[in-house]
Amino acid sequence: MKKKISFGVIGFGTVGSGVVKLYLDNLDEIKKKLPFDLRLKTIAEKTKTSKEGIKTPRSIKITDDAYELINDPEIDIVVELVGGKTFAKDFIISAVKKGKHIVTANKALLAEAGDEIFGLCEKNGVEIGYEASVAGVIPIIRSIKESLAGDRVENIYGIINGTCNYILTKMTEEGKDFDEALKEAQKKGYAEADPTLDIEGIDAGHKIAILTSLSFGKKVDFKDIYIEGITKVTNIDIKFASQFGYVIKLLGISKKQGDRIEVRLHPTLIPKTHPLASVRMEYNAVFVKGYASGSILLYGKGAGMMPTASAVLGDVISIARNIANETVATVPIRGYISKFIDKGDILNVTDIVSKYFIRLMVVDKPGILAKISGILGKKNISIASVIQEGRNDEGGAVPLVIITHETQEKKLRDALKEIEKLNITFDKPAFLRIEESL
Amino acid sequence: MKKKISFGVIGFGTVGSGVVKLYLDNLDEIKKKLPFDLRLKTIAEKTKTSKEGIKTPRSIKITDDAYELINDPEIDIVVELVGGKTFAKDFIISAVKKGKHIVTANKALLAEAGDEIFGLCEKNGVEIGYEASVAGVIPIIRSIKESLAGDRVENIYGIINGTCNYILTKMTEEGKDFDEALKEAQKKGYAEADPTLDIEGIDAGHKIAILTSLSFGKKVDFKDIYIEGITKVTNIDIKFASQFGYVIKLLGISKKQGDRIEVRLHPTLIPKTHPLASVRMEYNAVFVKGYASGSILLYGKGAGMMPTASAVLGDVISIARNIANETVATVPIRGYISKFIDKGDILNVTDIVSKYFIRLMVVDKPGILAKISGILGKKNISIASVIQEGRNDEGGAVPLVIITHETQEKKLRDALKEIEKLNITFDKPAFLRIEESL
Repeated sequence: MKKKISFGVIGFGTVGSGVVKLYLDNLDEIKKKLPFDLRLKTIAEKTKTSKEGIKTPRSIKITDDAYELINDPEIDIVVELVGGKTFAKDFIISAVKKGKHIVTANKALLAEAGDEIFGLCEKNGVEIGYEASVAGVIPIIRSIKESLAGDRVENIYGIINGTCNYILTKMTEEGKDFDEALKEAQKKGYAEADPTLDIEGIDAGHKIAILTSLSFGKKVDFKDIYIEGITKVTNIDIKFASQFGYVIKLLGISKKQGDRIEVRLHPTLIPKTHPLASVRMEYNAVFVKGYASGSILLYGKGAGMMPTASAVLGDVISIARNIANETVATVPIRGYISKFIDKGDILNVTDIVSKYFIRLMVVDKPGILAKISGILGKKNISIASVIQEGRNDEGGAVPLVIITHETQEKKLRDALKEIEKLNITFDKPAFLRIEESL
Repeated sequence: MKKKISFGVIGFGTVGSGVVKLYLDNLDEIKKKLPFDLRLKTIAEKTKTSKEGIKTPRSIKITDDAYELINDPEIDIVVELVGGKTFAKDFIISAVKKGKHIVTANKALLAEAGDEIFGLCEKNGVEIGYEASVAGVIPIIRSIKESLAGDRVENIYGIINGTCNYILTKMTEEGKDFDEALKEAQKKGYAEADPTLDIEGIDAGHKIAILTSLSFGKKVDFKDIYIEGITKVTNIDIKFASQFGYVIKLLGISKKQGDRIEVRLHPTLIPKTHPLASVRMEYNAVFVKGYASGSILLYGKGAGMMPTASAVLGDVISIARNIANETVATVPIRGYISKFIDKGDILNVTDIVSKYFIRLMVVDKPGILAKISGILGKKNISIASVIQEGRNDEGGAVPLVIITHETQEKKLRDALKEIEKLNITFDKPAFLRIEESL
């Protein structure tokens, strides 16, 4: 058994600072769990200081050159916490080629270049831990790869972006509009100054890509995933959804449909009574339906200094335990053996079948509903319920909201195009998807 | 790498049938996850038939002698699913001595003889998987041992008995009384013909014992745990709890208090807004607060043929993956290294500090509340709120419900004894504990 295992951390920002702090604060407890020394040897950071003001003892070396750490033969595990797809990728590739094991929270890189990186790790016989890349502290990666190894995932649904969940919670519970809620999220540190990656759904899209690949043992091309952020969700949508018994959540959805995979990320109406509906504020949750397991929900903080650090250090310890036992990757990096992982056949979003919530701002005059329902009928789309706001202002705009039964999205889109041509709607007809059977 | 790993199942009852069914149904998928053959070689069952009518192929041997399986040199992993503390213990001990790895769902045995069994496994260099022993399919054992290995658990709260949660849900949502709700649970298969172990809290007590030991790296003597079932919870309690903003759940509670441990299992008032409050019916959930992780909730089915089978087979595969890689127990069986696991110093329940819900049936006449609050005041117990039902019937019985601020349980019990002596209450004064800061 190897008696001393060393790791280094690249990136002394929020998460890096958290990892160092947790390691230092908790070392006495960690020692009781490991029959070997786990040493944090080096931290690499351009500015040489922790973003969060973490003080480090002299025994930990701080360098501004990541390669000093990557090339250090004493270091067994490299923790990459710089993020992004350029430097981070170079660091990981160099470290893997040097035989280092990797721990990373870099969802963007894994979603877009996972194949290349995971393949390189396998080729070089090293492990890569990426629990922190999806839903922060929630142990979803390990649960799918290990706890559910004898089972099979059928569907997976995730609230996997804390920024968006915070904004939608504020809009729903306090009636704030999108811009107000976003500003508040930024003030509280839940949203970046440039919130695009979060509010446009890119970040959550990366995570559902990783979860899909892992759940079904398929390669998933990130570009094949339908992604729609929350910027177009209005307070009117939230209010009407509530009247129909739904809340709106930014949901990553992934379902096995025979040999094909349905995977998408968009604002979704879910029943108020579903456990995911009560996931509020910056919290994340992943809901898994397994063939044998039935419904499982895992809930916790999806981001933040210390929760993410907890996930990162958990991965470091798992890998260190394997190194100490002179074994490696007893569990395949992606849960499935690589040779069985083929490209997933991903359904185009226009081919999915769903219930829909249609919101129209229509001219306030009689006969409008008849025209609209006529077009829907012609396309074989049946209406489950309708709310038409009371008229105030003949010729003005009133919201008309329709819930459909299940239909193919292509048909719905065609119908909405025809409705738009009627010139009785003010805005472009808007729609949201409803997920009821989750 | 070992190319063929065999396991055997002792016990072809509900869970055993589930394991066999899942293995057979899912073998194609399992093969894609393992670089070796995982073979179910033998099933041992007195009656030689599956309780659930599962058909087995000829390649699986069925015997009525568990020792045929235990003594078979080809079998690497023995899955013990007979339950109970007699035969099961003999089977496990014999198998461990033969160098077999163990998977079990036997919470009673592990809670009461865990030390002996875990110690024997370590001595014989074998693993024991027991994910299914606590909260069925919920991956709580693995999450504490592995995902949170770099962190430390501070508090843990669990709804870990599906029978009780079903009964309390029916009482709360449908106003059923205890006996009606129990009968319904029995009819639905959620309660045994003799429901004692469930409704008296023994089963859930076993589970909180295991979780406590694992979370804090301490030996826990099951007899030191304060256990109170749900048989004394009344519809009046539930109604008043609701008026104060609480729901009543049978909750396992475990907290690190400096060097001491507070661990108890009893009906508990928790705020309606807490994620645990929305865990309904036969579902289980475990809520963990870690130093770095913050709040994590894991939710799923705590029992049942297929969910439990999913957890069992997950453990079989974890162990098989280690065997194939010629390593063993890379993760210590109890999360902590054995030599650091000492006996936990468990607080007596009378020494705990809590808020309390007191329910009295008092004589319906003026001046009663003054007398009662006088006694509470003398014991330094402050009252947070009171509901006294409107009077109908001078001299008859009316409920008086008091919520206290935090106080030591010893003081509360003393005060209630004095109140009883006043001869103004009809029943013995009853109280429940409130958990608010979870």
